[in-house]
Amino acid sequence: MQENVVYLAQDLIRRPSISPNDEGCQQLIAERLQKLGFQIEWMPFNETLNLWAKHGKGEPVIAFAGHTDVVPTGDETQWTSPPFEAHIADGMLYGRGAADMKGSLAAMIVAAEEYVKANPDHQGTIALLITSDEEAAAKDGTVRVVETLMARGEKITYCMVGEPSSSKTLGDVVKNGRRGSITGNLYIEGIQGHVAYPHLAENPIHKAAPFLLALTTYQWDKGNEFFPPTSLQIANIHAGTGSNNVIPGELYVQFNLRYCTEVTDDIIKQTVAEMLEKHSLKYRIEWQLSGKPFLTKPGKLLDALTLAIEQTTGITPKPETGGGTSDGRFIALMGAEVVEFGPLNATIHKVNECVNVADLAKCGQIYHQMLVNLLDK
Amino acid sequence: MQENVVYLAQDLIRRPSISPNDEGCQQLIAERLQKLGFQIEWMPFNETLNLWAKHGKGEPVIAFAGHTDVVPTGDETQWTSPPFEAHIADGMLYGRGAADMKGSLAAMIVAAEEYVKANPDHQGTIALLITSDEEAAAKDGTVRVVETLMARGEKITYCMVGEPSSSKTLGDVVKNGRRGSITGNLYIEGIQGHVAYPHLAENPIHKAAPFLLALTTYQWDKGNEFFPPTSLQIANIHAGTGSNNVIPGELYVQFNLRYCTEVTDDIIKQTVAEMLEKHSLKYRIEWQLSGKPFLTKPGKLLDALTLAIEQTTGITPKPETGGGTSDGRFIALMGAEVVEFGPLNATIHKVNECVNVADLAKCGQIYHQMLVNLLDK
Ligand SMILES: [Zn+2]
Ligand SMILES: [Zn+2]
Repeated sequence: MQENVVYLAQDLIRRPSISPNDEGCQQLIAERLQKLGFQIEWMPFNETLNLWAKHGKGEPVIAFAGHTDVVPTGDETQWTSPPFEAHIADGMLYGRGAADMKGSLAAMIVAAEEYVKANPDHQGTIALLITSDEEAAAKDGTVRVVETLMARGEKITYCMVGEPSSSKTLGDVVKNGRRGSITGNLYIEGIQGHVAYPHLAENPIHKAAPFLLALTTYQWDKGNEFFPPTSLQIANIHAGTGSNNVIPGELYVQFNLRYCTEVTDDIIKQTVAEMLEKHSLKYRIEWQLSGKPFLTKPGKLLDALTLAIEQTTGITPKPETGGGTSDGRFIALMGAEVVEFGPLNATIHKVNECVNVADLAKCGQIYHQMLVNLLDK
Repeated sequence: MQENVVYLAQDLIRRPSISPNDEGCQQLIAERLQKLGFQIEWMPFNETLNLWAKHGKGEPVIAFAGHTDVVPTGDETQWTSPPFEAHIADGMLYGRGAADMKGSLAAMIVAAEEYVKANPDHQGTIALLITSDEEAAAKDGTVRVVETLMARGEKITYCMVGEPSSSKTLGDVVKNGRRGSITGNLYIEGIQGHVAYPHLAENPIHKAAPFLLALTTYQWDKGNEFFPPTSLQIANIHAGTGSNNVIPGELYVQFNLRYCTEVTDDIIKQTVAEMLEKHSLKYRIEWQLSGKPFLTKPGKLLDALTLAIEQTTGITPKPETGGGTSDGRFIALMGAEVVEFGPLNATIHKVNECVNVADLAKCGQIYHQMLVNLLDK
């Protein structure tokens, strides 16, 4: 399995598929899967290419989800080997996307292929949901595929997202959920004027100061068994004309919350509104919900994955829910159990991104063993 | 006197002397004064033209101070007559600079001319300090003339700045001082990071929130008999990369204080530093002192002006120190008593700036009478 996974990972890395470009990655994958009897369905949306491939019939539907797009390379001269060369040195495969996530994508594909080859009449459905828009806007990728499938009444029972979840050793961490993410764009109104005549103006920064203190010190919750506490961060704040003698007419504050299942987006919106009212501010606020939190509690999928990791590596993974968002948030909306597992994430989005070649092969074994654990019992 | 003042005001308004351009205004004035025996001294600095003209000898040195530059017109189509036409309608003279301050400049010149014509051997010195850089940077104007005079050991005893001080009726308000103005450019340091990993970052907005509340609610003083309380306004605040998932690394806050004689710039700097230390902030701050406060207490100059206004208009003016800064701050550094008096300021820096023609003539009479009150006793 190792050669197969590594060759495919190299093939994928050599296609410089910076979001939302796919650069032929999905074509390559589709051709391989088609040979094994997978049904191929293309779902392009605007500049994004999406692939939905299935083998078998009925439930459970086990989907592997991944993305072919990568983030930009940054300064290429800082790379020890060209970022799209897929160079191997000292047992490490280097390249943009090596860890996030062309390596695990290759491992998932090879695992699915081998399982289907060995079990052509397997129970249920084995599927792959692959997009080229995960790293950028994530507007025309997984979310649109999910909408399409839901509109048709198609279901995903279990989903394995191949994001690099491991922290120090392969298999030490899996993600069994993600926090929600919501952004507030807040405009606080004042009255513009001259600093020498403050009684004729209303400084929105001064008016907002007690509110900002309340907002940044508010304790939303204490988290729970599965999630760290909800955290709010002001990402942007702007007011002023550039002149030192003009009181600005408006203050802009943009804040983002990573929130756990102890609150909801509605509770967040209402709490912020109450704080604003309490401080008698004139304001308008625009909310952007990037993703609700999701959680896959211990159950069939998490058990199958945990066991597969133990069987392959001898390590018992820790389920975690921290960090950023992933496309798992969209798939969870279908009612699927969703877990994420992949190689070490230490180098992702950095120069000299790399993945351990032996780990990649083990990833493939783990994904394969997870299929065995889910379907062969 | 009226015709003389109004014609000169019109002549000046017709020269579109937007800061720091003089457009021949000072040449016109110098020629008139020279004919009456004034000594003319040009003090150009960079793009700014400055005129220092004197008549007589010894003390007291009574200087009229003014500026020939004007602020831009704004949208000319909104003016009912072209801004440099100096059109008179219904007893009002319209034009950019009519009130600020070509009208009072004309009145001061005619007053000085008439006094010198009638009293060629007057006591002391009558002088005019005229600049073309008051409305803009104010870097090469009065401040440089003052430096030059001080370096030579020249003195000004009494100074009348012709800024439009009147509020509702000509003569209702004179300025016998101005607040100081100081600006703080504050940079608060944090550690940039991803909003999903706040424990690895340090949000400078969050860290600064309690300080900002303290800064904006601090009571500096209660003002005094002559000054309103010191007032601080945040004019600009900026932080953020533009992305909603990045915790910014630095917060910029620019604030300006208009301060009275109850505090000093040193006290202000120290108080802000103490507040910053108290809130354990990492910061750097750059201060710009625009002008220290000055005050001309009731005395010979204020008495002479007050009496002149009473004699001419029947009104007793109220001495005030509010509003913005003026070139008076520089002249006060010479140890001069400084007052400001001129026509109504309701339309200054606006479209359809205008001045009452009869008021202009009265301004001339008041300036003239002030000379009489100071020199003829
Ligand atoms: Zn990824
Ligand atoms: Zn002025």
